[in-house]
Amino acid sequence: MDFGIVLRVLGLLLLIESASMLPSFGVALYYHQGDSKALLFSMVTTLVSGLLLYFAGRYSKKRGTVRHKEGFLIVGLGWILASLFGALPFYLSGSIPSYADAFFEAVSGFTTTGATILTDVEAIPKGLLFWRSFTHWLGGMGILVFAMALLPALGAGSFLIFKAETTGPTTDKLTPRIRETAKMLYVVYIIITLAQIITLRLAGMSLYDSLIHTFGTVGTGGFSNYNKSVGYFQNPTFEWIITIFMFVSGVNFSLYYDALHGNIRTLLKDREFRLYIFLVLMAVVMIAININNAVYHDLGESIRQSSFHVLSITSTSGFSAVDYDLWPDFSRMILLLLMFFGACAGSTAGGIKIIRILLVLKIIRKELNRLIHPKAVLVTRIGDKTIPDETLQNTSSFLLLYLVIFLAATIILLAQGMDILSGVSAVATTLNNVGLGFNQFGPARNFSTLSDFSKVLLSMLMLLGRLEIYTLFILVSPGFWKR
Amino acid sequence: MDFGIVLRVLGLLLLIESASMLPSFGVALYYHQGDSKALLFSMVTTLVSGLLLYFAGRYSKKRGTVRHKEGFLIVGLGWILASLFGALPFYLSGSIPSYADAFFEAVSGFTTTGATILTDVEAIPKGLLFWRSFTHWLGGMGILVFAMALLPALGAGSFLIFKAETTGPTTDKLTPRIRETAKMLYVVYIIITLAQIITLRLAGMSLYDSLIHTFGTVGTGGFSNYNKSVGYFQNPTFEWIITIFMFVSGVNFSLYYDALHGNIRTLLKDREFRLYIFLVLMAVVMIAININNAVYHDLGESIRQSSFHVLSITSTSGFSAVDYDLWPDFSRMILLLLMFFGACAGSTAGGIKIIRILLVLKIIRKELNRLIHPKAVLVTRIGDKTIPDETLQNTSSFLLLYLVIFLAATIILLAQGMDILSGVSAVATTLNNVGLGFNQFGPARNFSTLSDFSKVLLSMLMLLGRLEIYTLFILVSPGFWKR
Repeated sequence: MDFGIVLRVLGLLLLIESASMLPSFGVALYYHQGDSKALLFSMVTTLVSGLLLYFAGRYSKKRGTVRHKEGFLIVGLGWILASLFGALPFYLSGSIPSYADAFFEAVSGFTTTGATILTDVEAIPKGLLFWRSFTHWLGGMGILVFAMALLPALGAGSFLIFKAETTGPTTDKLTPRIRETAKMLYVVYIIITLAQIITLRLAGMSLYDSLIHTFGTVGTGGFSNYNKSVGYFQNPTFEWIITIFMFVSGVNFSLYYDALHGNIRTLLKDREFRLYIFLVLMAVVMIAININNAVYHDLGESIRQSSFHVLSITSTSGFSAVDYDLWPDFSRMILLLLMFFGACAGSTAGGIKIIRILLVLKIIRKELNRLIHPKAVLVTRIGDKTIPDETLQNTSSFLLLYLVIFLAATIILLAQGMDILSGVSAVATTLNNVGLGFNQFGPARNFSTLSDFSKVLLSMLMLLGRLEIYTLFILVSPGFWKR
Repeated sequence: MDFGIVLRVLGLLLLIESASMLPSFGVALYYHQGDSKALLFSMVTTLVSGLLLYFAGRYSKKRGTVRHKEGFLIVGLGWILASLFGALPFYLSGSIPSYADAFFEAVSGFTTTGATILTDVEAIPKGLLFWRSFTHWLGGMGILVFAMALLPALGAGSFLIFKAETTGPTTDKLTPRIRETAKMLYVVYIIITLAQIITLRLAGMSLYDSLIHTFGTVGTGGFSNYNKSVGYFQNPTFEWIITIFMFVSGVNFSLYYDALHGNIRTLLKDREFRLYIFLVLMAVVMIAININNAVYHDLGESIRQSSFHVLSITSTSGFSAVDYDLWPDFSRMILLLLMFFGACAGSTAGGIKIIRILLVLKIIRKELNRLIHPKAVLVTRIGDKTIPDETLQNTSSFLLLYLVIFLAATIILLAQGMDILSGVSAVATTLNNVGLGFNQFGPARNFSTLSDFSKVLLSMLMLLGRLEIYTLFILVSPGFWKR
């Protein structure tokens, strides 16, 4: 293990984080709500810590590059460090007096979960709320991917960092030139971001609100600056715009890159994209019928609410426009399932990703064929691509580990006296980076009532979910530290 | 496909089923409660149908043996036929006026589920109740395994029948001479059955009640002849005896065979057996503490109730001694999980089996090691046995398919307006062959309120669970019927 390069990269990461607090500092200065000092102090602390780490790393004798193990360590520690320092503005300003709470909020921001411990969001100064939402934007496409777009090449292991931070099992579409790919993803990301800000502004939303809700949408995070989330506006146009951009943010960004280069067919023929559309439509229709019969008795309203919340959950944004926790159990169960599904690989969404749902069907089909024709050689394909057995095995074990973590965490929460649906949904919503759950964690509630222990547990689940489990698990495997 | 041999074996199966109604007919004659005529008529119908099938099968020109595809067809159709005819006594006697209900009860019996649509069990004549419980005994070790112990050799495919009907992923311990193995398993089964009957008699239970509750225990079925199940007796000794025999019935029967031949170390060193004990003890302790604090405030009572219900659920018997649905959600969640775990492979229990839990841990560990050492050749072992990759893949896809079926069936039930926990537990308890659930399907309730559609759906789930999914799925795969 070359700790020198690990420290240097982590140092650079903190320098970038410090710089990324600058817009929030500007907002704080503009609105004069007493949060500028805390933001400035956080920037300086992060800057100094980054420099210390960087120069500590330069004392190392080795002048290596990032290899396999260094890659895992950089990603795991990078996200934890970014959250530890990202929590500073909330804590230093006194807006969130408990550091455990501030850490939860920062993790929830960077992992684009959007679960909050704030009981009154509207009481928080605007500079801090800007930072809180900006972490969604930074975390959505990946803070280290962002770093890679800016920094010189890190060596062979940077592919591993890239893989660990971008979502989904396959990255075959992405060019091996990581820096180019990282830049390309951020170009697409910035275009979508600007498009949503402009659309919301044209529809009449204030600039500040547009920025906040765009960061929450394109990062699929879901922090709002209002207690009632998007429901505050009571504006169907805003709801539809956000619905569409939540859908857009759930698509594999590399498909957009292809589309921008004239290759729109790649997008339209992509199996994951098609299944994503199919599942979203199915869910929208089923829930719309269900809530129309049970709650709204107005088809237009039912379709809008169904669309908004299906996309809010499946893109793992976690905005709300109404209290869907009052809907019938059929609709709630579908939303719970969608939390796990998430959207497409290579998007900013959380969850297990639609491509893995597709792979599950392939895995099952392969085994059935093997039982019917025990001696046949079976090849698995998605579209015209052959899927190696390794990917299938990786997917199976990923899903089984996901399930084990989900169940273990739920049992731990229930041991503290929580009801089943609250516990299940708290774990589901954090592990899948959604942000909203049911019962105790429904849209009308928040995570403030949890014990500090549970808050740290759920923070870890958010990080596990964002980094798709393995990265953090590997760091605590005894095998990783041997030799 | 050689349909001749399929018809002949199915015919023989019905002949055996007809003969197995004889003891119930005797009980009916003894108690004179008006059910003897229905039992006699069912016997004759089943006998005649069996003869017709057998002789129809002899018209086939082929004189082949059971091969791969015939094996799947025999198991799938065999279980459905046995249930269709097994329902006759309930239906013809008028005790269960709806045939869908009678079918549900018969499937629940043969699959050793023990879920009932009867609102008042005690109103049913004793001959019928005897038949109802005897189906547990027949289904526990396998009706076709029973047939194989009695019939001459069926050819190479009989191994497949045997594998489909006995539980768990591995049968490597069993000798390739299927007839000997089938006999051996039934010898062990009969010894355990007699042991429990004698123990219950010695403790003061009536002969009839002893027989009924022994069939329900050793088959891990759970039908009782009392509305309050084992709770009727209010007798701690009975409860402990049944608890112990539920534990015993959850162990791999081939280990007992080894132990009877003096090889007790195989039992004690078996990894699955050890994990079974460990999980049971963990669950008993956690639930005992939880219900002692919340409900009983009496450690002895808490330990007894916790032990009884942990073993009732994990052995998938489904007896109840109290209404555990009134326990805190932490305990209920653990019971829900145990439903899925089930007990050991090669026992009469349902669920996914402890060995697969062990395999899940191996699958996850293997993938973590592969990510840390991408180029290493990784061998998976349980104890001193090497586990082939094929078994790992079969286990993964089994569990994923299990999950897909579980979720799909739950959604279908919820679409009819059921609450989440009732729906989840109805599917869990039938798919895992347990028989008791939560809320609408708690120990104080039953399955009578379901629609006929839901009853048939849950009947299919019981069959899917008993045959460990694949057999029935293969029969409806297009690939199976090609060529």
